[in-house]
Amino acid sequence: MMSVYLHDIPLPEAQTRFQQALQDANLWRVLGSELIPLDENALGRVTAEPIWAKISSPHYHASAMDGFAVKAEDTNGAQPSSPIQLSVTSDQLSLQAQYVDTGDPLPGWANSVIPIENVESLDEAGQITNEIRKPKTIRIRASVAPWSHVRPLGEDIVTTQLVLPAGQVLRPVDLGAIAAAGHQEIKVARKPKVAILPTGSELVPIGSKLKAGDILEYNSLVLAAQIKAMGAEPTRFPVTKDDFDMICQRVKEAAREHDLVLLNAGSSAGAEDFSAKVVEKLGTLLVHGVAVRPGHPVILGILRNEKRKMSNKDLVSRHSSLIPIIGVPGYPVSAALTIDIFVEPLVAKWLGRRPNQLAIEIATLTRKIVSPAGDDDYVRVAVGKVGDKLLTAPLSRGAGVITSLVQADGLAILPRGTQGLEAGEQVKVHLYRSKAELERTIFCIGSHDLTLDLIAQFLAEHDRRLASANVGSQGGLVALRRGEAHLAGSHLLDPQTGEYNISYIRQYMPNIPVKVVALVGREQGLLVKRGNPKEINGLRDLTKPKVQFMNRQRGAGTRVLLDYHLNLMKISAESIVGYSQEEYTHLGVAAAIASGRADCGLGIAAAAQALDLDFVPLFQERYDLVIPKEHAQSKLLAPLFGLLAGREFREAVSHLTGYDVSVMGRIILED
Amino acid sequence: MMSVYLHDIPLPEAQTRFQQALQDANLWRVLGSELIPLDENALGRVTAEPIWAKISSPHYHASAMDGFAVKAEDTNGAQPSSPIQLSVTSDQLSLQAQYVDTGDPLPGWANSVIPIENVESLDEAGQITNEIRKPKTIRIRASVAPWSHVRPLGEDIVTTQLVLPAGQVLRPVDLGAIAAAGHQEIKVARKPKVAILPTGSELVPIGSKLKAGDILEYNSLVLAAQIKAMGAEPTRFPVTKDDFDMICQRVKEAAREHDLVLLNAGSSAGAEDFSAKVVEKLGTLLVHGVAVRPGHPVILGILRNEKRKMSNKDLVSRHSSLIPIIGVPGYPVSAALTIDIFVEPLVAKWLGRRPNQLAIEIATLTRKIVSPAGDDDYVRVAVGKVGDKLLTAPLSRGAGVITSLVQADGLAILPRGTQGLEAGEQVKVHLYRSKAELERTIFCIGSHDLTLDLIAQFLAEHDRRLASANVGSQGGLVALRRGEAHLAGSHLLDPQTGEYNISYIRQYMPNIPVKVVALVGREQGLLVKRGNPKEINGLRDLTKPKVQFMNRQRGAGTRVLLDYHLNLMKISAESIVGYSQEEYTHLGVAAAIASGRADCGLGIAAAAQALDLDFVPLFQERYDLVIPKEHAQSKLLAPLFGLLAGREFREAVSHLTGYDVSVMGRIILED
Repeated sequence: MMSVYLHDIPLPEAQTRFQQALQDANLWRVLGSELIPLDENALGRVTAEPIWAKISSPHYHASAMDGFAVKAEDTNGAQPSSPIQLSVTSDQLSLQAQYVDTGDPLPGWANSVIPIENVESLDEAGQITNEIRKPKTIRIRASVAPWSHVRPLGEDIVTTQLVLPAGQVLRPVDLGAIAAAGHQEIKVARKPKVAILPTGSELVPIGSKLKAGDILEYNSLVLAAQIKAMGAEPTRFPVTKDDFDMICQRVKEAAREHDLVLLNAGSSAGAEDFSAKVVEKLGTLLVHGVAVRPGHPVILGILRNEKRKMSNKDLVSRHSSLIPIIGVPGYPVSAALTIDIFVEPLVAKWLGRRPNQLAIEIATLTRKIVSPAGDDDYVRVAVGKVGDKLLTAPLSRGAGVITSLVQADGLAILPRGTQGLEAGEQVKVHLYRSKAELERTIFCIGSHDLTLDLIAQFLAEHDRRLASANVGSQGGLVALRRGEAHLAGSHLLDPQTGEYNISYIRQYMPNIPVKVVALVGREQGLLVKRGNPKEINGLRDLTKPKVQFMNRQRGAGTRVLLDYHLNLMKISAESIVGYSQEEYTHLGVAAAIASGRADCGLGIAAAAQALDLDFVPLFQERYDLVIPKEHAQSKLLAPLFGLLAGREFREAVSHLTGYDVSVMGRIILED
Repeated sequence: MMSVYLHDIPLPEAQTRFQQALQDANLWRVLGSELIPLDENALGRVTAEPIWAKISSPHYHASAMDGFAVKAEDTNGAQPSSPIQLSVTSDQLSLQAQYVDTGDPLPGWANSVIPIENVESLDEAGQITNEIRKPKTIRIRASVAPWSHVRPLGEDIVTTQLVLPAGQVLRPVDLGAIAAAGHQEIKVARKPKVAILPTGSELVPIGSKLKAGDILEYNSLVLAAQIKAMGAEPTRFPVTKDDFDMICQRVKEAAREHDLVLLNAGSSAGAEDFSAKVVEKLGTLLVHGVAVRPGHPVILGILRNEKRKMSNKDLVSRHSSLIPIIGVPGYPVSAALTIDIFVEPLVAKWLGRRPNQLAIEIATLTRKIVSPAGDDDYVRVAVGKVGDKLLTAPLSRGAGVITSLVQADGLAILPRGTQGLEAGEQVKVHLYRSKAELERTIFCIGSHDLTLDLIAQFLAEHDRRLASANVGSQGGLVALRRGEAHLAGSHLLDPQTGEYNISYIRQYMPNIPVKVVALVGREQGLLVKRGNPKEINGLRDLTKPKVQFMNRQRGAGTRVLLDYHLNLMKISAESIVGYSQEEYTHLGVAAAIASGRADCGLGIAAAAQALDLDFVPLFQERYDLVIPKEHAQSKLLAPLFGLLAGREFREAVSHLTGYDVSVMGRIILED
């Protein structure tokens, strides 16, 4: 038996080996600094040295109000009933009060300010005058303490004090404080330059018209955005074909003007995976394979950059002759996580700032996670707050499923040695979203319907986020019973009564008061290939020879509907080829047919339309939202009811094929 | 009595009035959108419409592994002891297995992939061959299920599904998902253009050489950075003098090409405050004065932009003829908070994203807050976790103290109607920093010493943040007893024993085990003006006529030291002019002398040096760190002890004037 596996080493060992090599190369430090003007472009840059105040702020005693500067002693004894008058003459000797605006320097002889609203301005005749800034005298009816309404020199900043430490990521107010401390330039860490080299003969640029086998090259886009977000400067190179010499050439070129080279992908051990060999040829291969999931085929190495010493002077001073290189796996989820795990801490070090850290919360797991004991396992999870409980559920594990990262609310990191976790266990979740964001998230579980996407879109405009998990109608009711969601979509036909949902709700959620609201009526029918080449016109045709069926999973409303009608028509499941093949959504079934994996499946018209299939309508059914009473009355769900009652959403749904909106919002049951 | 106060209206009313006017002007909506290329510059932009998938991903059945594509049925029955051989001929009829790389399309006849490591490649003679990709036959010893190691069409994304809702702030992975869904451009909200107009004859550009009365104009810098950070596009205009016509001219000019005009400052009701009049002349003044602290003199209005209709076509379509204007108060803290309160929600609306929200935590107040009942009061606070308790203390209330915003860990918002809060009460804090950041913060309280700034700088390099509050030595010990800090700096001389700190610790912190470590020896002496014009050479000279003294606050170690020596020398406090005037730090005393508020004060040499004063050395004293045992043993404080033991920090302190580092790190007491 062939062994082409990489030699995976544990993540901490890989990190240590990489860091040690960087230290040996004198690259585990702030790379360099530059002096930049103190303007709004300094935002987000990192201070390269402590910032000490060059001047005090204020740099003089400043009036804190519009009013009259006085000597506090001169006001002693002033009372409402026995006012004191102070002279505002320009004669220095008898001068007792002088008008000052906010920010004006206090005259040397004064030590306090009386706000103008506490002053009566008098003219030469001793009458109150409108010349409030230039009276002859002022009359006051209260004394003031020394240094009242004065901002003394250094109130904000005193010369030589520390304004900001090195390593501070600059915020708007920081820029103000630096300016106030007398600086007009600021020394910040220079931005590390990161080269991103996509490789692979199968890669085509985004937006290309695709044929089978073409892979859209968007990893370099995600990587570049990640690099940019962490404060470094990405360069995206064009795609290099799977050719050892061409890749070597590109890597050498990139190493010349960058601080780090990311080679994506070819980092595995397949026939066209050249990355490891390239690193071995051009430098030192430190690590090939890390026991982390997803991620495995990560390469860490150091390139020698021989030519650099002889080339551009500026580069010699700015760049080392040793350049780290990372072979980044090709699957998009693996690629993105590899950047988070290996590149972010390195860029943080190079910038002198702290590495980014996600906030951690403890949540209860609602579904088990199986994990290989040998790996550090980064599981993308959904997180939601239902009632008082913070709940979490694993999302798709596929390393190719980038939407699992888009939808993820966080990561559950299962360390090496863990075989997995059972439902109900507590797990630490590293959160991508703020707690506030999670608290405005409505968790919908159960049957999938395309209108849920529309609901998500409409709710986003009303300060709510809809997260939905597709587990089928019955699965949704079970989840509601366990308190794991706010509502469930359900379309379960009771074969006895011909009614939808109610008997199932009573069976699966006994003693839980609920509100059931109709969302839509919808057509169910057979999804078939364009032109219906196998002439499938009813359930009877599913038993035809050479007809491959695709079923929905057990517990799905569509599955119940199918079984109900098969039973009525006395068609046995065994007579249908593919009855045991299951997909979890309407679109999944449609995709299976569009791709030729099956000839037909039961589903909704909108799914057929989405994948350009034909649709053979068979039945009309009702799709309801089942909502435990406690959530139905919550503020969280209020915008959902608003949406069902309003015109806009109804109209948007009515444009979808196969939907009947006349039932929308009808109360089916209210305990 | 003059009444020049603004008519302050409550904050919610001001917000409602402003929003209503914007709605009436059809400006309370997404301003517009633009199509941009899908590259890394799309990061942080906001989707202007929902993004639906144009294609599926993968768009074909893709091999998920390097290996051989097979029909699963052909593998049935394969066992370790009874292998099955599959033909790899190019003859289509007898073809049973075909080599595929990861990502290759599955041949139409195949429905599964066997990973290469589970395959024996055989040559024509039936021997195992190294030609692993092009054998004659393969031998397998296990069956595979259909669709194993295949990424089916649509596994990630199915055509027409919702990829992202409108209003999403784009993250790196979002860009990948949009690309995977077949887009190469993306419609995002256009960036609102915000004009920032600094006004004021006293304003000078940052970096200017200053004379009394000059004010550094850095508000426009902070405002521009705030605007940029919220995803809009700032334009900083040059300073306009306090001249009604010039300001009108500038505002008209700015309104022509911007979506919002910020006029800073002149928004109060003083003699040179023209903002309200300008708004009244050029449009509608909605609000002048809001009952919010700091902030009060906020102006909200709508400008008419008559000329716009006739000018540049592009502008007509992009900009409304009604432009909101905000008069932003001049004090930097007021200005920054005004932007957060009024501009951030508006820009969020214009971009179609959610307004930013700070995370909220409940903390225990360690010092009382007095607050005017009529205002919504935004109090900058320090927040720290000591043991299990989240504690918070108000920072400087001065609206001119921008460092209070820099140092703030959050805001305690005391709503209108609240008179204040007592120490010990629970208060909601809106956090600027993450909880993780607060958890790595060391809270130091007590006496101030310049080396604390250096400690802060050194700790920042070791993943710790030092927050320090200056309440004097005794105040620090009291805070430690209450569990309100991790450590305190103290230099309290016991007049009986001549020992430092220990008797005070026993008195103020009975029954609390502590560790006391010497930080530095330092000289105390008299800070006097350059050249010592009043010839102050000892404590006796404080009683000279015309000598104005500046004291430290009660409980400060320096105050104890002074009183000890005054007592020894039998000098009465009453004989010293200024004995009752108090500053809270050495630098505060130094600043008072530098500015002429006093002639001398007792303090340390470094403070004299900082403010360019002369120093008359009198006494040598020891400055200790007092650390409750529970914290001394914590991981949090470990880097502090590392720093005291190391060479680097010692050397940095030894460069400061008046410090003796020979005692550094000596254990004075360990319970």
